Amino acid sequence: MTKKDKLSVEPYKGVRDFYPEEQAFLNYFIATCREFVEKVGYVEYDASPLEPSELYKAKGAENEEMVNEQTYTFVDRGGREVTLRPEMTPTVARMVAGKRRELGFPLRWYSLPNCFRYERPQRGRLREFWQLNVDLFGSHSPYADAEIIAMAYGLMKAFGAEDDDFVIKVNSRAYLNKLTEKLSDEARKKLFNLLDRKTKMPSDEFEAGLRELAISPERFMSAEGPAEIEKMIREFSDAGIKNIIYDPSIVRGFAYYTGMVFEVFDTHPDNNRALFGGGRYDNLTAMFDDEPVAGVGFGMGDVTIRDFLAVRNLLPVYAPPTHVYIAIPSSELALQAQTFAGSLRQQGVNVAVDFGEKKLGDQIKTAAKHNIPFVIVLGQDELASGQYTVRDLETGSEKKLDKGQLSEFFLNIERK
Amino acid sequence: MTKKDKLSVEPYKGVRDFYPEEQAFLNYFIATCREFVEKVGYVEYDASPLEPSELYKAKGAENEEMVNEQTYTFVDRGGREVTLRPEMTPTVARMVAGKRRELGFPLRWYSLPNCFRYERPQRGRLREFWQLNVDLFGSHSPYADAEIIAMAYGLMKAFGAEDDDFVIKVNSRAYLNKLTEKLSDEARKKLFNLLDRKTKMPSDEFEAGLRELAISPERFMSAEGPAEIEKMIREFSDAGIKNIIYDPSIVRGFAYYTGMVFEVFDTHPDNNRALFGGGRYDNLTAMFDDEPVAGVGFGMGDVTIRDFLAVRNLLPVYAPPTHVYIAIPSSELALQAQTFAGSLRQQGVNVAVDFGEKKLGDQIKTAAKHNIPFVIVLGQDELASGQYTVRDLETGSEKKLDKGQLSEFFLNIERK
Repeated sequence: MTKKDKLSVEPYKGVRDFYPEEQAFLNYFIATCREFVEKVGYVEYDASPLEPSELYKAKGAENEEMVNEQTYTFVDRGGREVTLRPEMTPTVARMVAGKRRELGFPLRWYSLPNCFRYERPQRGRLREFWQLNVDLFGSHSPYADAEIIAMAYGLMKAFGAEDDDFVIKVNSRAYLNKLTEKLSDEARKKLFNLLDRKTKMPSDEFEAGLRELAISPERFMSAEGPAEIEKMIREFSDAGIKNIIYDPSIVRGFAYYTGMVFEVFDTHPDNNRALFGGGRYDNLTAMFDDEPVAGVGFGMGDVTIRDFLAVRNLLPVYAPPTHVYIAIPSSELALQAQTFAGSLRQQGVNVAVDFGEKKLGDQIKTAAKHNIPFVIVLGQDELASGQYTVRDLETGSEKKLDKGQLSEFFLNIERK
Repeated sequence: MTKKDKLSVEPYKGVRDFYPEEQAFLNYFIATCREFVEKVGYVEYDASPLEPSELYKAKGAENEEMVNEQTYTFVDRGGREVTLRPEMTPTVARMVAGKRRELGFPLRWYSLPNCFRYERPQRGRLREFWQLNVDLFGSHSPYADAEIIAMAYGLMKAFGAEDDDFVIKVNSRAYLNKLTEKLSDEARKKLFNLLDRKTKMPSDEFEAGLRELAISPERFMSAEGPAEIEKMIREFSDAGIKNIIYDPSIVRGFAYYTGMVFEVFDTHPDNNRALFGGGRYDNLTAMFDDEPVAGVGFGMGDVTIRDFLAVRNLLPVYAPPTHVYIAIPSSELALQAQTFAGSLRQQGVNVAVDFGEKKLGDQIKTAAKHNIPFVIVLGQDELASGQYTVRDLETGSEKKLDKGQLSEFFLNIERK
């Protein structure tokens, strides 16, 4: 092949390659979410990203833009219309409706799917993102709402955020509908649209929009919340959680919300925007089934959280899972190196070996490029004496250990 | 909506919904693979399932069928041709070529992607499957080949297989090319095709096929292997691993293999077929780059392994991550239940709570439906006395514990 015949090494536009460091963050995101939500009794499910397109067409007019312009939709070789899931909620509603009689409620489910949207790639928005989805089905209790909000709070803390790094703004769709019952359907749609874009416009533009609908901005924004939300906020406050507040301007974009809605806001002055949110949707499974199952939940994306953690210096430092690299002065020792590594692995140590095709110095450079913390050079002397020199690649310090001491040394390092 | 307007609860044809029990197996598959390959120094990467279609078109004529008929390929809203990855090898070659100068070799990478093929769904073949991919780049050493084969062996053992449950058949593409150098290109292609389908046809049909190409079946099948493979097999045997053998009929379907190829065969009489396999491909990154990087690796799918484990009764028993369910006699205790659960969670216990919207008996049934092993009924008496009765839902036995003993009880159960 000539140079110009070569294929591009770039991924498809708007999606990411996960080289080991990026993959390590994704794994950290997944592990942190998983550990936290399982503590609250949630159990994992998943589905294929391939879904019948009809699943996204029935959800209501507010989602038209997403379905028509922002999904990956195509016809398969058998003539079926398929969509790559743009979000998980329709899928989980389908799955719950599909086994409603067997599942047992309240049902706590979580998932960590990748979702796809055809959008212009920009900061915080990619064509593929990962999203924790947490859903609680089969309860109308305000404590179900409170559990979901408490989980959003707890997750932020699990990622290392402080209480004053974020605020959770809560509202009620039902209450908002009641407050605006005198508006025409069209005017209410306009209002919801305006509220949804509130943080993306100057406040005078927002206020002018309210006045256009004959709504007083002052009175609207200072209205007291519905009793059940005020009570919930009081109970959080009594438990020491003060950054959960009522905000009448929160609506959430999706048409399927019917009750409580909330958004977690970054309080950083340069990034005052919603990180994620959720709410109550009591009719969603009615698409599939005559007996709808109440639901409340939220979705939290990896891209947004990563940006949040990066700004606050909360990203974990990358370290590979490998404890030690075995370098050999000659390729003739390759079999012995594998045998030596095998016995360390049996004791729980993660060991990579070189095959001795390059000079020792280059072998050690390979270990350093891979961020492996320690190297052992395994030569005839070491094999004969049973004494091994462990070199710390960061500090350059060395330690002589016999075989029995090696695994203890590496496994203790890991526990730090 | 009337009944006939309802949407189907079925997933897209040929893919699976992962309800908690299925998801638990997928997580077991992933965790078992991950723990094993990290022991050998492999590091995880991933990429999006969306790839530019050209990535699959350059690989050579033998893959035509897959590219033209078995991929999900479509044009995005911006006019780009996109394919859902049908396998991971082209992606990993693209990523390695993309950072060749920075990566450091030998490079050990693994991934656990889902892959997509438009096929008629049948036993062992679905339109979406998960696949462990293990690849070792930048070494021509026969010990790199041996490491990859040893990992295929070790993985089978990690899933609980015994040595006589499977056999690993090894061959060499390079040697096969040399053995058949007198054949025309067309005849050699016919031979490889015949070899690839060997286990799918009666042995007399296979032998007739060989004779048609003027090859003696007896001589072909009893030929001695190339020296480097015979040596490797001897070294495995010396280390106590006897189920790795030379088999001149192994070719592997993909055009990109250049050296050692192998397949892991199920020895079960009803299922005598390849479970998975791999080999050496030294020119694959040449699609992207003038300096190709040698590679050797394999892919192992979740569907095939699951079938193998099911036949041998090696599937893990499902258990949810939740340790205990809190039931309450009245919804008025919902806040106390949440507070009680919160303090147990802080000690590491995974706790789900009921909101008291159903009778106690029904709450306990919910816990049982979810396979949660223990229930605590939290009433006024328990809250007043600080004594809690833990009921084992499997045996019906009960135990009275005070708050300080609870977490120790549940966390000890887990360790069993």
